[in-house]
Amino acid sequence: MTKTIQSLTPSAISSAHGLIKPYIHKTPLLTNTTLNNLASTPQSTESLQGTEWAGQAPANPTIRFFFKCENYQRVGAFKARGNHAQALALAAQTLHIPAYVVMPRISTVSKISGTKGYGAEVIFSGSTSTEREAVVAEVQAKTNAFLIPPYDHFDIICGQGTTGLEMQGQYAALVAEKPDLSVYGDRAEVQLDAVITPVGGGGLNAGVATFFSDKSTKVFGAEPSFEGGDDCRRGLLAGERVQAVKTLTIADGLRTPVGVLNWEVISDGSKVAGVYAVTEAQIKAAMRLVLERMKVVVEPSAVVGLAVCLFNEDFRRMVEKEAPEGWDVGVVFSGGNTTVEAIGKLFT
Amino acid sequence: MTKTIQSLTPSAISSAHGLIKPYIHKTPLLTNTTLNNLASTPQSTESLQGTEWAGQAPANPTIRFFFKCENYQRVGAFKARGNHAQALALAAQTLHIPAYVVMPRISTVSKISGTKGYGAEVIFSGSTSTEREAVVAEVQAKTNAFLIPPYDHFDIICGQGTTGLEMQGQYAALVAEKPDLSVYGDRAEVQLDAVITPVGGGGLNAGVATFFSDKSTKVFGAEPSFEGGDDCRRGLLAGERVQAVKTLTIADGLRTPVGVLNWEVISDGSKVAGVYAVTEAQIKAAMRLVLERMKVVVEPSAVVGLAVCLFNEDFRRMVEKEAPEGWDVGVVFSGGNTTVEAIGKLFT
Repeated sequence: MTKTIQSLTPSAISSAHGLIKPYIHKTPLLTNTTLNNLASTPQSTESLQGTEWAGQAPANPTIRFFFKCENYQRVGAFKARGNHAQALALAAQTLHIPAYVVMPRISTVSKISGTKGYGAEVIFSGSTSTEREAVVAEVQAKTNAFLIPPYDHFDIICGQGTTGLEMQGQYAALVAEKPDLSVYGDRAEVQLDAVITPVGGGGLNAGVATFFSDKSTKVFGAEPSFEGGDDCRRGLLAGERVQAVKTLTIADGLRTPVGVLNWEVISDGSKVAGVYAVTEAQIKAAMRLVLERMKVVVEPSAVVGLAVCLFNEDFRRMVEKEAPEGWDVGVVFSGGNTTVEAIGKLFT
Repeated sequence: MTKTIQSLTPSAISSAHGLIKPYIHKTPLLTNTTLNNLASTPQSTESLQGTEWAGQAPANPTIRFFFKCENYQRVGAFKARGNHAQALALAAQTLHIPAYVVMPRISTVSKISGTKGYGAEVIFSGSTSTEREAVVAEVQAKTNAFLIPPYDHFDIICGQGTTGLEMQGQYAALVAEKPDLSVYGDRAEVQLDAVITPVGGGGLNAGVATFFSDKSTKVFGAEPSFEGGDDCRRGLLAGERVQAVKTLTIADGLRTPVGVLNWEVISDGSKVAGVYAVTEAQIKAAMRLVLERMKVVVEPSAVVGLAVCLFNEDFRRMVEKEAPEGWDVGVVFSGGNTTVEAIGKLFT
């Protein structure tokens, strides 16, 4: 069967899960009372000064979080479910195949050393996707290597979509056991109201949206706004995919434009309900909360979804309006590949 | 019944557990393959240069870790099981009783604001226990407040000993489910070979040692050596408790001398098998591994036990000699009260 956009169905995600399950961790789904309370309290009017919401009454949504901790995944990120760098290196090592990984020269030290640690040869390129693709072509010409695209591929979408499958199952089990964790208490059908994931290349968001496409759960994306890093959000507004991005946002996993196939899924309003952006300061504030209150190490890219829930008034108003009783929101922490030095640099 | 050292029995710990269980979290017991492999590989001869073990063959023990994550406890530390500062403030708030907490002026910002956050009045003192006790006497004279000692009390030892009770139960359940996590694989009796905890005032170590006193599990203590912070270890060598300590070790939870009652337990060779010390650099190296590899936020005091297992050649030789097949070692991560700024300061 030819793999087309029509093949991207919830059952394709289930099949992928059957295939990759032996090779991945079932990462924990965590809750946190402090963060629930913060999200369910209006922001101060002062904190809205200087933003587009200045002078308006802060929203007052009710939110219960369920954090899917892919920072505890193998190689420290959801990418073990589909691709890339460390995940690809690990897969190649497992199968005794040589691997070449092209990554931006300015990649974080932990990502570079992690990839080398799994035995791959790392080749550096410039930071834009154009520069990267040029180096990829060179390497292929020299080595005859097969190209595994970083995020824009049917199999990768399916693998990464297994994040959604797992989190819905864990959510249902958790709420059945502890109804107080949900905004609903005891109820018959246990289905997440919403799920929000980071959007970089878009494979994770497209996969998760595919899994939930036949369910009531609404899927959202989150991006950094810095230097136009919110290419997906802007593309949705313009009705056309943004093809190139050049941002040095601290959310370094989200510096790429959304892939073509991923865009087809994400721009389908029946699959993804909206994409929201947050500032660098909001990403840092969310990261601080996760490290200090949850005691969980995440990288900046991982917390854009949480930052949207805590700080983006458009999102918060939408929740307040759509659900006066509140929402159970699944938040994907996409990865934890950072170093103590990088944390120090961000906060000193 | 008068509570004496004779009353410190495993069943007293079980009773305490029954009392405090509704008010505490059952914190997770985590494992980590990378850290197991590191601990089960000899240190390089270069890394021993400049230490007391320079020029000697590095030990080659086999260690499987089981990390009891009290950094995920309420108030971010094991102290919720018995005392102090934030735990006391929380207890007082729960019972609507005013609380005054005396703490060193140089306490970390997160501990101070956490304690205030639970509604207690914070009063500052100098860093030594002598200075602290003088301020305590003043506050008592002024307020008629009851003194809850910070660590040297029967009830506190029992409460903190529940850490051991929980971790042994979780270990048995985990290894029954996944025998590969143990050095033994499938075996009939599932009992931790050893447990190591930080030693500051000594309540945690004394409590855990009390719980394991009728079992085969050996209990060890870990301390920072910086500026004589290893008062317990030195006291054991001298055969007499060291009464005052003045150290500014980064393991700020371990700057106090061991309490009188705690000393009675810890200096009983049938209860505590030994206390080992580590350097500031070793504490930082262990903390980096936990943050970067386990993605778990811990404070420096929390990782002295892990640092002993990874870096203290006396401990590592002992394990190699006593157990050629290796040990399953329970390591208590005592707390995670730190800030992103403090992490930055330690590593930049």
